[in-house]
Amino acid sequence: MVSNDKYDYIEKLVLARIKPKEEEYSKLRKAFNFIKKHVENVLKENNVKAKVTLQGSFAHDTWLSGDNDLDVFVLFPPDWSIEDLRDKGFNILLEAAKRIGKYEIRYSQHPYVRVYIGDIRADLVPGYEVVSNKDIRTAVDRTPFHTQYVNSKLDDKMRDQVRILKKFLKNLGIYGAEIKTKGFSGYVAELLIIKYGSFRNLLREATNWKHPVYINTLDNEEEFKKIKRLLKQKYPESVLYIPDPVDPYRNAAASVSLRSLAIFVVASRCYLRKPDLVFFFDEQTLNQEIVVESLDNRCLLLVELPLKEKLPPDIIWGEIQRVGDRGAKVLINNDFNVIYWDVWTDEKEKSYILYELDYCEKKNPRLYKGPEYWAKDRVLRFIAKHIEHNAIGPWINMHGQLVSLKKRKYESAQNLLIERSWEYIVTPHFKGLTPKIHVVTRDFLEKIWGQGGISKWLMKSILRRPKWMEKCIE
Amino acid sequence: MVSNDKYDYIEKLVLARIKPKEEEYSKLRKAFNFIKKHVENVLKENNVKAKVTLQGSFAHDTWLSGDNDLDVFVLFPPDWSIEDLRDKGFNILLEAAKRIGKYEIRYSQHPYVRVYIGDIRADLVPGYEVVSNKDIRTAVDRTPFHTQYVNSKLDDKMRDQVRILKKFLKNLGIYGAEIKTKGFSGYVAELLIIKYGSFRNLLREATNWKHPVYINTLDNEEEFKKIKRLLKQKYPESVLYIPDPVDPYRNAAASVSLRSLAIFVVASRCYLRKPDLVFFFDEQTLNQEIVVESLDNRCLLLVELPLKEKLPPDIIWGEIQRVGDRGAKVLINNDFNVIYWDVWTDEKEKSYILYELDYCEKKNPRLYKGPEYWAKDRVLRFIAKHIEHNAIGPWINMHGQLVSLKKRKYESAQNLLIERSWEYIVTPHFKGLTPKIHVVTRDFLEKIWGQGGISKWLMKSILRRPKWMEKCIE
Repeated sequence: MVSNDKYDYIEKLVLARIKPKEEEYSKLRKAFNFIKKHVENVLKENNVKAKVTLQGSFAHDTWLSGDNDLDVFVLFPPDWSIEDLRDKGFNILLEAAKRIGKYEIRYSQHPYVRVYIGDIRADLVPGYEVVSNKDIRTAVDRTPFHTQYVNSKLDDKMRDQVRILKKFLKNLGIYGAEIKTKGFSGYVAELLIIKYGSFRNLLREATNWKHPVYINTLDNEEEFKKIKRLLKQKYPESVLYIPDPVDPYRNAAASVSLRSLAIFVVASRCYLRKPDLVFFFDEQTLNQEIVVESLDNRCLLLVELPLKEKLPPDIIWGEIQRVGDRGAKVLINNDFNVIYWDVWTDEKEKSYILYELDYCEKKNPRLYKGPEYWAKDRVLRFIAKHIEHNAIGPWINMHGQLVSLKKRKYESAQNLLIERSWEYIVTPHFKGLTPKIHVVTRDFLEKIWGQGGISKWLMKSILRRPKWMEKCIE
Repeated sequence: MVSNDKYDYIEKLVLARIKPKEEEYSKLRKAFNFIKKHVENVLKENNVKAKVTLQGSFAHDTWLSGDNDLDVFVLFPPDWSIEDLRDKGFNILLEAAKRIGKYEIRYSQHPYVRVYIGDIRADLVPGYEVVSNKDIRTAVDRTPFHTQYVNSKLDDKMRDQVRILKKFLKNLGIYGAEIKTKGFSGYVAELLIIKYGSFRNLLREATNWKHPVYINTLDNEEEFKKIKRLLKQKYPESVLYIPDPVDPYRNAAASVSLRSLAIFVVASRCYLRKPDLVFFFDEQTLNQEIVVESLDNRCLLLVELPLKEKLPPDIIWGEIQRVGDRGAKVLINNDFNVIYWDVWTDEKEKSYILYELDYCEKKNPRLYKGPEYWAKDRVLRFIAKHIEHNAIGPWINMHGQLVSLKKRKYESAQNLLIERSWEYIVTPHFKGLTPKIHVVTRDFLEKIWGQGGISKWLMKSILRRPKWMEKCIE
């Protein structure tokens, strides 16, 4: 048993490094006021009444030092049409952004404007001013209710617990609801602390989780039972169900993948056994030589696809993941074992899929398993298909099943990925593209060493063991 | 649909070749009388009253031309003790054998004597003269009741049908209840014809078989239901249940393996589609060049074990099969895929196991699949075991399962089979022996071309496709 002092000590150290300092608060507050002033000016010029509000983790005061992000929601009258909001509302924000400084137009469900003030990034998002959570029309409208709810439930101590949890999730690579991460959103982190009171309590709970996990964020047990049933129907694929208290028919944790949940549970168990800073700060200095040496006798293929146009990150990541998944199936159908696959994109120029296979080349005949002897027509079809000059068999094995050994169609996984690209490069923005297939060798790695994102992702994907995992057994 | 004429034509041709001629009958009859005289002389000299009887397929008149085998059962008084039978009884037969000519002592459940007269082989077996099948004491005592039963049920037409069936089974390599074959005994062939009336009817039935198959050889449906249940308990591994009408609590088809059953069913289907002589006479002239060419990029390992002493065939075959099975498990546990394995022995000097593997050498790391994230202790144990300098991972995959890639203990299947021989060479008469492992190459095959049994078995095992299977789709 680890003493509570040990956890307290570690968590205090973490907090000292991630809790924003007063200067950071005032810098962000000033930036908000600056933005607010400009937006209100444009609103006045257009004779529009709207509220400029602060939302998100700054408004919840659960943000981390260094995360200079502001969520500025401009709430327009509820009698505006959706078209007005997207057109007139959006243009007012755009005009304000132009006056504020550097900006760009972004898309999630709706277009919005992102402005940059020094190292601060602020999103200006148009929404409705909604009086009750029953009147929510767009995902955006829900946000002010989240702020209200979270602030009514969190005290300062719990806010620090949220910060610790967020840093933990970030370091595990499972913080964020985007398709890229399929992890835990900031709001989910807050709901979990509201439910369990503290980071450590949550982790103790998590060690008992087995999907599907249901977390009662509602006061009412009867109500929760009903909601559980409904959420299970509405989100059949979810592994974690957390009814959004503001809108209980929504699963706030819908984004969490099985892998993210599993990482969280295993890391929780490891942290409780061996509390350590490595669970929060794990800047892996990857030794290039170790990475290169680990390549011996492995087959790592990197599929490279160009990005033809600028697209919202969720679109790019969603498509490249789908292409990656289809590609894995093509490999498996051709008897290459896919040991690991992952995707990465710089979101600008290129997308990548990394496959690790058992072998890149298979020159030996392939084993085809046919039907059992009693499956009349299938037996005849299998025999007909597998009697070939260069086939061994068919024969009947000791399980009474027909089997045969036959020369394989593709001996090289690389050729397969090139020649059958039409079969897996199927998403709207990739379709028709020709992939470049790189074999990951020492030479290839040396060529991309310096190239930031891709190089770091590739090295991590090759070694694969997270640093915190080593703590689990020491 | 194939016309009945076509079947009739083929079956008539078969019968013309397998039905013994009158000269053969008289030759065997003469041999029996010769044996009988000698045995009766020794009986008289010893003042013992016993009956010298003819049993088996000659007595049933279901034998095939060229099968010059006689089963001579000498039935001693039922008041003799088992010891008397095995000692006094056996010695009388031994003395007779010495006078008859060339002989050898053989063992199945009991010792017996085999004598040779020209090209005729006769087994002299001591048993009891039992009045009712309720009084059966040894397996031998059952035989006279079989003869009685079969002869009461078969007419001459059905006897020919048995012959056709036996030849069909023989050619498929599934005729015989010995451990070597695990197929259909002559008595089972007779029971099947008694049940279904003809070869063709039986085959039509067999195309609908799916194991476990129960065949009602009793007159009574109620009785059969009861027996079925009991046989299933007594022979839980059987795939085919045929109550012995002479002793219904015995499954006459206990020896039939799943593979033998499956071959019979598939071949039945093929024959009914395309009746052809190849189903009965399939002397494969194996083209050596084709065999050698088929070796390309395959991994075939032949394990050779010496036989230290003369043993009953069932013992040798049983042990070598068990060793083969254990060896396959050792290979599989070390991540070599066993695509095929089979055994063979000359029953005198050597035993062999042939393994076909996906690869003989695997230099790439091995994928270890660990527990799912929620299996608390197993997760920790897996992590502890797989964190090694030269391991990739462990990592958590998208199914929430822990996995790792690690250098394998054995990169060479050949070394594995040598170094771990203690793990599979475990049967009484092989234990402690050192196996020789041959890689089956062109050179190796050329060395053993001429060597009869082993060479023929090996070539068949390499190509594996039975000739009749090609008929199925023409």
